[in-house]
Amino acid sequence: MTRSGEFHWISKYLAPLAGTGSFGLRDDAALIDVPAGKSVVVTQDAIASGIHFLPDTSLDLVARKAMRVNISDIVGKAALPHSYSLALGVPDDWQDADIASFASGLAEDQALYGIQLTGGDIYRSPDRLCIAVTMFALIDPARYKSRLGARAGDAIMVTGTIGDAALGLKVATGEIKADPTATDHLLNAYHLPDPPVATAIAGAIAQYASASMDISDGLIGDCRKLCAASNVGAILNRSKIPLSDAAAQRVSEDDGLWKSIYTGGDDYQVLCTMPASAKADFQNACASENVRATHVGDIKGAEFGSMALDIDGTPVSIEEDSFSHF
Amino acid sequence: MTRSGEFHWISKYLAPLAGTGSFGLRDDAALIDVPAGKSVVVTQDAIASGIHFLPDTSLDLVARKAMRVNISDIVGKAALPHSYSLALGVPDDWQDADIASFASGLAEDQALYGIQLTGGDIYRSPDRLCIAVTMFALIDPARYKSRLGARAGDAIMVTGTIGDAALGLKVATGEIKADPTATDHLLNAYHLPDPPVATAIAGAIAQYASASMDISDGLIGDCRKLCAASNVGAILNRSKIPLSDAAAQRVSEDDGLWKSIYTGGDDYQVLCTMPASAKADFQNACASENVRATHVGDIKGAEFGSMALDIDGTPVSIEEDSFSHF
Repeated sequence: MTRSGEFHWISKYLAPLAGTGSFGLRDDAALIDVPAGKSVVVTQDAIASGIHFLPDTSLDLVARKAMRVNISDIVGKAALPHSYSLALGVPDDWQDADIASFASGLAEDQALYGIQLTGGDIYRSPDRLCIAVTMFALIDPARYKSRLGARAGDAIMVTGTIGDAALGLKVATGEIKADPTATDHLLNAYHLPDPPVATAIAGAIAQYASASMDISDGLIGDCRKLCAASNVGAILNRSKIPLSDAAAQRVSEDDGLWKSIYTGGDDYQVLCTMPASAKADFQNACASENVRATHVGDIKGAEFGSMALDIDGTPVSIEEDSFSHF
Repeated sequence: MTRSGEFHWISKYLAPLAGTGSFGLRDDAALIDVPAGKSVVVTQDAIASGIHFLPDTSLDLVARKAMRVNISDIVGKAALPHSYSLALGVPDDWQDADIASFASGLAEDQALYGIQLTGGDIYRSPDRLCIAVTMFALIDPARYKSRLGARAGDAIMVTGTIGDAALGLKVATGEIKADPTATDHLLNAYHLPDPPVATAIAGAIAQYASASMDISDGLIGDCRKLCAASNVGAILNRSKIPLSDAAAQRVSEDDGLWKSIYTGGDDYQVLCTMPASAKADFQNACASENVRATHVGDIKGAEFGSMALDIDGTPVSIEEDSFSHF
């Protein structure tokens, strides 16, 4: 394959992804039309080769992961994704086939989530692929859910299952082994996050949650951030952490993998808190979208200290509690 | 200096920069409140060490350049900057003093332009500093000015002077020499773009321009992009390109530097088109903010072909017409 320039890449591969207000990417900015009564939710997460994904990952999957880690943030705020801007740092060895593969991943997830590209930038990043996505949503600001509202006594809820991506990374690097079905499941969880994007779930978070965020840096660490923002404590019950069959099998074989489950990161599920009385309604709303919602712990008052993990009836504190790329 | 973690950096150095709706960066997203009748202008430009700035550049200047290249895009749309999101790819050798210097640059320009940080991401970029800024503005969409509306007969106007940054890069790398005053002027133009951010100028672009954009990749190349988007041709008069005293002196000594002047990039001035009848009013509005506005050429019909440069009465076409980082 040959390599053509930045402007050819934009017009051939990215312009077809542009939405209303983006002038087919022939302008250097875009307009987001905001209906009266709505505010714009903004979030921005970046991923880099060798840091957030393995360098040999298929580029369509990398593109979809870059979008989905941001969509996950939006969902955690009780919103639905609307559009996104893309800053693409391209390594020197990229060819036309690479941008084509990357753009095909963007196109696939744009169709899946009903979102459009506003614009952005392609620039040289000689050593490694860097992708910074800024994701937008439109929301009635009264429905936006921050991390700051958790109250003592609230139930801590998580969607989906926890730890699959962390174990998937260990499978990808050969650190652990699994049977073929489990291998597929865990690798897929690592490469392609699946945040619970659905009107019913966003509506239930807006209606019932006192605080909400997505889990990206590990259940324990992110719960600690929510507690710090809300000025509360929390206790999580390890035995209640929802596991896939594949993950449950791995920890049954090696108890030491538990730590990866709750500190490993890359879950991209929702962590939210709500009065216990709202739990069943929230679970029903999630179930209507075939999403599991599990009560994994409880918010405590600030006097409780920051956080504890209850392991078979024994509360312990966890030191290295959050996955960090630093 | 020691190095503390991402979350400490955010709370200590970046949280003080956060605006309304950003929850002091304690949430993982932000809300932009949009008054009825306004739309959000979005633009995103990234800069990387060794590509868009010299690796030994002071980090407060790097931060300000990252902001200003985006502010320049906003100004080119007849808008004024409102807020921005920051994806900061941090090399492994950064210490607390580095983020402190970088944040001080952000703070200085936030105060200068009256803008605030919405949030963003800090991530590992082991080999080189990468900064992707997404800049927002609020605008009545009827006032937004795209690249797409230039018409045959329109005057082509530019603000400020052209080519100083391109010559500044040559001074910085030792490729050319200048007296101390000129050296300061040219280096400063390269390190610290100075887009014409002013209500009166934005208003005049909105009122008078048929098409508008900022000049970032060189006058010739960017004018060619405007022509392509508007489906018109253009002729620029080299003798009318506004030069600073420092730049005029350099080209008087070496005629070969002309090419750097009009293809070198990093000008971050406004390029806009308007009926010749509006020229004086536009120039007066710019003059009220001490900004020069110069009539450098004219829009031609599509049949003219893409673009020509008139050099002392002889129209020539320019092959390598735009600075590209690829």
